[in-house]
Order: sequence, then structure tokens, then C-alpha cells
Amino acid sequence: MRIAVLGTGTVGKTIASKLVELGHEVTIGSRSPDNAALLEWVGETGARASGGTFADAAAAGELVFNCTAGGASLEALAAAGAENLAGKTLIDVANPLDFSQGMPPTLSVCNDDSLGERIQAAFPKARVVKALNTVNTAVMVAPDSVPGDHNLFVCGNDAAAKSEASALLESFGWPRDALIDLGDISAARGPEMYLPLWLRLMGSLGTAQFNIEVRRD
Amino acid sequence: MRIAVLGTGTVGKTIASKLVELGHEVTIGSRSPDNAALLEWVGETGARASGGTFADAAAAGELVFNCTAGGASLEALAAAGAENLAGKTLIDVANPLDFSQGMPPTLSVCNDDSLGERIQAAFPKARVVKALNTVNTAVMVAPDSVPGDHNLFVCGNDAAAKSEASALLESFGWPRDALIDLGDISAARGPEMYLPLWLRLMGSLGTAQFNIEVRRD
Repeated sequence: MRIAVLGTGTVGKTIASKLVELGHEVTIGSRSPDNAALLEWVGETGARASGGTFADAAAAGELVFNCTAGGASLEALAAAGAENLAGKTLIDVANPLDFSQGMPPTLSVCNDDSLGERIQAAFPKARVVKALNTVNTAVMVAPDSVPGDHNLFVCGNDAAAKSEASALLESFGWPRDALIDLGDISAARGPEMYLPLWLRLMGSLGTAQFNIEVRRD
Repeated sequence: MRIAVLGTGTVGKTIASKLVELGHEVTIGSRSPDNAALLEWVGETGARASGGTFADAAAAGELVFNCTAGGASLEALAAAGAENLAGKTLIDVANPLDFSQGMPPTLSVCNDDSLGERIQAAFPKARVVKALNTVNTAVMVAPDSVPGDHNLFVCGNDAAAKSEASALLESFGWPRDALIDLGDISAARGPEMYLPLWLRLMGSLGTAQFNIEVRRD
């Protein structure tokens, strides 16, 4: 399918490359579509890869990944255009990390709100699904790079959008039973507020190549 | 050893009973030491169990568990008395859950601070260790009630206090390699901010009898 990936950082390029590898036609969207990182990625990735503005990408995609930095996501999505997001599944991978006070980062929104909810509120016709924000980029597209069973969380208001997102995640290598549906988009507070624990775990373990498995009775 | 457990709710009574079972002398501390729940627990639990005010308990204990509700913890610890906490390992099990806005609860402190840090700041001579707040009460004292391997997080500024707390957790049934040291007390933000995810998982799984295992490369 035709997929837009908004954001030219490591997350955006990694997901976009995986999608191209899986046979999708991918347009990466950027604030500055002539930026070197984007041109290089398009050149390396081949015929199914293209680049453009946020609006170009969102218009081209039947489904949209938000891989912009959390602090810039609402602005990037506004540039993408509500009309280009309407009716589409919008997989929000971003974390609202605020590095302005130094390390470790705090969250710019949390507790009684979340980035996922803010995006859904700002673009009510988009079908927002929060997913993938709880693992490092390499793990997102290669879950078997972490041994054993481990889980990923999805949430959103639209069941069909969650199904579509889940099917894509399965194609990335996530077993269907590894995906835990947390409910509506307000549940995004959970996986977003997990980030402070994730960051401390990264420090203690000395690696970002980890994830959690939910064990139950 | 002589251990104080502050709080007569389910968490306090469960931990206190486990400690008595393990051979410790336990004093449960309460705002109102003549409350029915406390008198009943003391009556049922036998000779190694006693009750008293927060101050009575903290004075009697060589180690202190804070099992009060997160919103009441600072007040309860003030009633316990800084002089009765000085030099002692203080295992903080509480979560700063705020139910005043309905369900799910929010956190009364998070993001750039935590309850663990506030307790350490208010009682600088106590040796605060955050632990056990990421699992349901039944799992705290019976980790094998959740099948498979799963983890518990400890953090605090005092290495010897973390060792003492870890030895107690081992006696509860937590394997030593299940305990992940997240660092100093500021790391309490991680396990405390995990609560919103825990609450959503409880809703999705339909049980509180679960925990997470950290899987790593």
C-alpha cells in the first residue's frame, strides 16, 4: 500500500526502509524536503521510496506514520494538513520527550493527557493508533532481535484502525498475540508514561535492545 | 528483626503478615491505633504482631515499610517522626495515586519529581528505597503466583539500604536476579509513572495478577 512516514530521523528512516522492504510505496515527509538525510535515503532505497513535504507525504499515503519528535508532532501534522489525514489510520510512534531541562528528559505532556490524545483531538477525522513508542527503533522493525516473547501495546478509538495497524505490526515480525490492546486513545498515557522507566532500564542494562513481556496468572 | 509497617490497608497487612510468617517482630503503625482493622490483625496474627501509632511503630522498627496511601504518606511519616526514621532503611511501597478526578487515577506527583524523592527530601536521614509499587499486593509477597520469570525494581541513594531491602525481597520469594537496581531515588519516577500502564493492563487482562519481565539482547 501507499504509506506516508512523517519524520526523517532514525525512527522515520528505519520504519520507512522496513515498509519499502515489505513492498510498500513509501513517501517520507519532511519540513524541508530537500534535506540531505532525506535525499540520501531516497537515493539509497530505490524506486518505491520518495520524499516530499509533510503535506506531499500525507496526501500520497493511504496510511500515515508519525515518526516526528514528540515536541514537534502537532506542528508537523498541521503542516501535513488535516484534510490529508482525514479517514486515514495514523500510527503515532512519537514520545513527548522534553530535553530542555537536561537528562533524563521529562515528558512535555502526561498524567491527565498524552500526545496520542492531543493528536486525536487536533485531528478528529484521523484514526489515531498509538503503537511502537515503547521500544527502541531497531526493536520496532526486528522484534526477534530481543530474545524470547515480549509485548507491544496498541490503543486508539477506532477498532478498524487498530486492526490495520496490528496487521502492519505483524508484518514487521510482531506475533499477533504479542500485541496488547489497551483500549481507547486515552490509554496512550500508559505507554507514554512508561518512558521514564524505559530510560532508567536502558541505563541499568547498558543497552536499548530490550523490551518487556507481560506475565500473567 | 524488628520491622515497622506503616499503614493498615491491604498492602500493609499483607506485608506485615508475610514478615511475621518469616519470623520478624512486626509493629503496624496507624493514625488511629485502636482502629478495628488493626486490632483484628494483631489478634489474628499472634505474638510477634503488635500495633500502635505511626510513631510507636517507627520507634520499634529497625527497618520501616511505608504502606500508607501515597497521598497520605508524607503526613504519616511526619507523624512517625523524623527521629524514628533516621538511619533506618525505609522501603517505600506507596504510589501517589489521585482518585479525586475519578477513574483511572492520575498521579499527584510525577514527571520532574516522585513520591520516593519527596520522602527522601523530607526525611534526609532515612535511607529510602523504592520497591514493590509495581505489582499487586498478592504478587508482592508471592511472586511465584505469577508464572515464569518477572522483575522488580529497586532504587535509592544508599547502597547498603538497597542491599538490605533486596535481602528482604529475596525472603519474600523474589530471586536475586529478578531485582533490577535502577539507580538513585530520582529513578522512582520510572516505577511510579509505570502505574498508568499497569492500570490499563489490569483492565485489558482482566486481572491484577500480572507483572512484567524485562527481556534483553
